[in-house]
Amino acid sequence: MTSRDKIIGLFRTCPNQYLSGQEISRLLDISRAAVWKQVEVLRELGFEIEAKHSLGYRLLAAPDLLLASEIERGLNCQLIGRSVISFPETDSTNVRARRLAEEGAIEGTVVVADRQSAGRGRLGRRWESPPGVNLYCSILLRPQIPVQQAPQLTFLTAVAVAETLQELCQFSAEVKWPNDILINGAKISGLLNEMNAETEQIHFVILGVGVNLNMTESQFPDGLNYPATSVFMETGQPIDRLNFLQFFLQRLDLYYSEFLQEGFTPIRHRWESLCHIMNKQVEVDRGNRCLRGTVVGLEADGALRLQQQDGQIEKILAGDVIPVKSRKREKN
Amino acid sequence: MTSRDKIIGLFRTCPNQYLSGQEISRLLDISRAAVWKQVEVLRELGFEIEAKHSLGYRLLAAPDLLLASEIERGLNCQLIGRSVISFPETDSTNVRARRLAEEGAIEGTVVVADRQSAGRGRLGRRWESPPGVNLYCSILLRPQIPVQQAPQLTFLTAVAVAETLQELCQFSAEVKWPNDILINGAKISGLLNEMNAETEQIHFVILGVGVNLNMTESQFPDGLNYPATSVFMETGQPIDRLNFLQFFLQRLDLYYSEFLQEGFTPIRHRWESLCHIMNKQVEVDRGNRCLRGTVVGLEADGALRLQQQDGQIEKILAGDVIPVKSRKREKN
Repeated sequence: MTSRDKIIGLFRTCPNQYLSGQEISRLLDISRAAVWKQVEVLRELGFEIEAKHSLGYRLLAAPDLLLASEIERGLNCQLIGRSVISFPETDSTNVRARRLAEEGAIEGTVVVADRQSAGRGRLGRRWESPPGVNLYCSILLRPQIPVQQAPQLTFLTAVAVAETLQELCQFSAEVKWPNDILINGAKISGLLNEMNAETEQIHFVILGVGVNLNMTESQFPDGLNYPATSVFMETGQPIDRLNFLQFFLQRLDLYYSEFLQEGFTPIRHRWESLCHIMNKQVEVDRGNRCLRGTVVGLEADGALRLQQQDGQIEKILAGDVIPVKSRKREKN
Repeated sequence: MTSRDKIIGLFRTCPNQYLSGQEISRLLDISRAAVWKQVEVLRELGFEIEAKHSLGYRLLAAPDLLLASEIERGLNCQLIGRSVISFPETDSTNVRARRLAEEGAIEGTVVVADRQSAGRGRLGRRWESPPGVNLYCSILLRPQIPVQQAPQLTFLTAVAVAETLQELCQFSAEVKWPNDILINGAKISGLLNEMNAETEQIHFVILGVGVNLNMTESQFPDGLNYPATSVFMETGQPIDRLNFLQFFLQRLDLYYSEFLQEGFTPIRHRWESLCHIMNKQVEVDRGNRCLRGTVVGLEADGALRLQQQDGQIEKILAGDVIPVKSRKREKN
């Protein structure tokens, strides 16, 4: 933890108290000059810190920053968040997390950035990542499960994001197979999970999570080929990013522990209950041919179970799945 | 291609011919000094090069070295071996191949080493890699298949290795689930496949292949917890490593092309016909419980299909599979 993180921690521990430079210096075992310097940096970061002669410093208000110390503070998790690393800006939290994983970072490490200069979505597409408004984070896991089961973690993450949106914002969130979360049919969150494995052993999995929180309509790029939204656009209210992240990490931690003990079944049931195309007619574009059928659930390997007219179950491993109704509407 | 590789190429193209230093210098557009220097290096590598005054150099015999130029020469492949990189020594061909893959190396790149200083087997175990006697190679693939199907490539590689052993050495090779090849019950080859992927897309797969060719019994470490062998130990005859590698790469190339066009079914049938525990009673140690049943085939995701007494099929994704008979014998 940096001196800056420690000073924030001290202010948080003693709310509304004045703390003299001398006290802070003694408590944290840093020089008076370092205290002064870090208070200046904190002010630049948006912290409102009052300084009163003979009394000392007092924290009046903290900005909506995602700092490691703020995230760790009050985080009630078993495994996830044992190490939190935050950046004002990075290329991509997934790339950072992957590098940390290769260097031996512990399971549960969380990487967060206020801004991504090269945020990526699925299939190498760009993920719009303006500063200070959304959530961009990556979680490092090292599950001892067969490689074939790694896709289950995507569904676990989707359930945790969707439930966080439901509980904090009272949305009716919907999971879109395989790795999006929608509100009223518009994309609010995308997941990009990466894996490094050998035949019998997963080295690591990176759960990449992007959630549009306080982004405004004008911050979306032109020409998106799908409808997109944010919490702010849906409610007209800004949401506290730190609170959202902590709630999400706690939910993820809970489900990951459950997953390691009980397997995929509980997650699969939750995911299916959040999936609006369950028991609906859909079309799947498989490049060379178009399949039509009814969605009847998820397979253990993350494939979508599609029941065809003749009753046969087809396993869908990849492809765009489109509800038959909405497709017709689009064509009109 | 290095000047050294080019000089070998020239000797191969003009067998039994004397080539003067001046000629080589002109044909390859390198200095006379460079020719002289590279001839010296080749001699150190074990090439027998005769030098006759007024006639020039002539290649008398080449050592059993795995040089990129020698491997590429006469290799009849569509995709595999489009780029070949060889090292006298490296840490691990899988690690090298992974680094090359991350830097954008093309599909089909083959990495070969005469010696590995940190050869690895499955689950991080050491893979004994003495110099100049065995085959240590890694092949980079970038298949556009779902992540869940990546384990199929392990079985494809196992079939190619087993068939190469059968056809070149007339062995009755046996595939051991999931990633070993045995001769008379002793391990002659191990595969270590690694994958880097995201939810919907495989970035790359590294097929790591180790085959014990000319290794002698004294070169195996003490205390191996399984019987191991080499071609030399089985036949008493050394085998040409280059010829073995080329035959294997060609077989792999053939099956990979077939796999991309026709899917896993043909490979699955071949693998099943090479699997000596098919339709046999086995026990599977799953850590917490022991399963008993009859092996009835491979699943599409590489799991072993085990039929239990009540007729139910259990999918085995991990664990040691032991034939019931041989286990009894061991206990006596």
